[in-house]
Amino acid sequence: MNKSRLEAFSDGVLAVIITIMVLEMKPPHGASVQALRPVVPLFLSYTLSFVYIAIYWNNHHHLFHATQRVNGVTLWANLHLLFWLSIIPFATAWMDENHFQAWPVAVYGMVLLMAGVAYFILTKCLLRLHGRDSTLAASIGSDRKGKVSVLVYAAAIPLASSSHRSPVPATCWSR
Amino acid sequence: MNKSRLEAFSDGVLAVIITIMVLEMKPPHGASVQALRPVVPLFLSYTLSFVYIAIYWNNHHHLFHATQRVNGVTLWANLHLLFWLSIIPFATAWMDENHFQAWPVAVYGMVLLMAGVAYFILTKCLLRLHGRDSTLAASIGSDRKGKVSVLVYAAAIPLASSSHRSPVPATCWSR
Amino acid sequence: MNKSRLEAFSDGVLAVIITIMVLEMKPPHGASVQALRPVVPLFLSYTLSFVYIAIYWNNHHHLFHATQRVNGVTLWANLHLLFWLSIIPFATAWMDENHFQAWPVAVYGMVLLMAGVAYFILTKCLLRLHGRDSTLAASIGSDRKGKVSVLVYAAAIPLASSSHRSPVPATCWSR
Amino acid sequence: MNKSRLEAFSDGVLAVIITIMVLEMKPPHGASVQALRPVVPLFLSYTLSFVYIAIYWNNHHHLFHATQRVNGVTLWANLHLLFWLSIIPFATAWMDENHFQAWPVAVYGMVLLMAGVAYFILTKCLLRLHGRDSTLAASIGSDRKGKVSVLVYAAAIPLASSSHRSPVPATCWSR
Repeated sequence: MNKSRLEAFSDGVLAVIITIMVLEMKPPHGASVQALRPVVPLFLSYTLSFVYIAIYWNNHHHLFHATQRVNGVTLWANLHLLFWLSIIPFATAWMDENHFQAWPVAVYGMVLLMAGVAYFILTKCLLRLHGRDSTLAASIGSDRKGKVSVLVYAAAIPLASSSHRSPVPATCWSR
Repeated sequence: MNKSRLEAFSDGVLAVIITIMVLEMKPPHGASVQALRPVVPLFLSYTLSFVYIAIYWNNHHHLFHATQRVNGVTLWANLHLLFWLSIIPFATAWMDENHFQAWPVAVYGMVLLMAGVAYFILTKCLLRLHGRDSTLAASIGSDRKGKVSVLVYAAAIPLASSSHRSPVPATCWSR
Repeated sequence: MNKSRLEAFSDGVLAVIITIMVLEMKPPHGASVQALRPVVPLFLSYTLSFVYIAIYWNNHHHLFHATQRVNGVTLWANLHLLFWLSIIPFATAWMDENHFQAWPVAVYGMVLLMAGVAYFILTKCLLRLHGRDSTLAASIGSDRKGKVSVLVYAAAIPLASSSHRSPVPATCWSR
Repeated sequence: MNKSRLEAFSDGVLAVIITIMVLEMKPPHGASVQALRPVVPLFLSYTLSFVYIAIYWNNHHHLFHATQRVNGVTLWANLHLLFWLSIIPFATAWMDENHFQAWPVAVYGMVLLMAGVAYFILTKCLLRLHGRDSTLAASIGSDRKGKVSVLVYAAAIPLASSSHRSPVPATCWSR
């Protein structure tokens, strides 16, 4: 089975995810520059999520560049990754509405963690399909970066949920 | 006529369908973990619809992998399939708003049934175009799985609409 | 310049247009089968618009199948067509909200007319680029069907706007 | 690394951006032709943003037509461009809601300026990758048009924000 349709479908899903997040950014009601202030944290979290999905697209691009073929398991491992990435707009919106309080941030972190896990599984599936001596295995290496980022996300979740103070004083942004 | 544009358009439509459903999942108003509770059934039905569309994308991918050429009839049979799949976000949203009561579940089942029927018609169109001795015919086989799932969906509809009790006690999730 | 990116971009835009219309179909508030009744005209107009855009995708597919090359003028003629098609969800929503009264139907018809005109211009641009003796010219023929449908749309507009009675009795569907 | 996936992803993102803007155009509540009047400025700004994104798609198409290969830096430069273009629907919606007052117009202009800057950076990255003697360098030329438009956008921002009168009398369009 060739990989071109898997790439095309993933590109489509990622393109929609990265763009519909902007629909959550409702324009402020005033026309003054002060009216923009409550939009600033929205804008920052939009930027953050944009960068995350951009990183995944980049990694996906590099991973499948070195891939020669895919099978049924790979298709599902890839859909599993897309599933967790598709939850990011929801998690971003919840985090925004609650001014970066502990639980929404923890859920956001957990979604990123699951996406990291899904990416790790996808890598393993492709490695098993191509074998240890393939160019794919060489290009992935030991994937230390992937393992480290999964650990960082996992560590960040209890950190966020245990901190009862929101990182940004909630009163500042109350509309 | 070659199949690449049909595949690209189908990938685009399925990518949009699978991602816009998440727009229906409005973030809860509180920041506590309890506030997430009403989102749980939404999340489950989102997951269910995601998996259904993922299955169709997988089957579509396998079907057109074995396809050599398409004609005007195939284009329309494919658009017919995409039409029913595009109704899934609406059916999911109605089912969610009414906490999985009988009629919305029956309508959801009927949309899935129609998508199954449309997929069956698409398969028949491609088989007629390629002939009984083609590799396509060999790869589809007798398509027993397809026929069985259509029958299961058809059986589920009266079942759902005749059960006057909602499968999930409606009071639990009333917001 | 080759045509593959023009096709890919057009497929993307048409895929989004054909799918976001379903977002206008808000699920009814009740769970009974009677609650679905006000959705029926929405469903019919969604189906109508789906079919229109499907027809354009089909024609676009056939037209560019016979096309060998594109130039800057063709890119803009194609974007002009996509512009009018992208207005269809708005025109459909206005028509729905007003239960198919005269003016919204006339505006809907005018958008379809402009899309027809834009398609006609695109065909002419491609014909001029390929010459009268090309396979493209042969496959288009005299495009009588295109001219006729433009005339039909043009005739339908004054017809709709002069009829002061809505085709569907408005009281039936008042929510 | 080949450029086809970068093109496909960019096409997807631009297709979504250009089409979701129409979701901001809410249908008017009346069915008369007068009810359409408040939609006129929305329609004009939708058209303006459509044309801007269409220009970027055209330029992107021409730029990558002459491109032979891409690297990691190019991927990020391209994502940076897509980021600013993805803000256009938000900026358009804010401008619309405030009837083209000074600040929203200035922000709209600044987003366009940043998109222009991002495009300029992308061009430089590709030039450095391909070298001064490449066909890419020849096809870009001195890119005087690009530099001029960046300057025009930059000049327009203080102009818009210093003019305290809105270009369209705000009372006309108050709904």
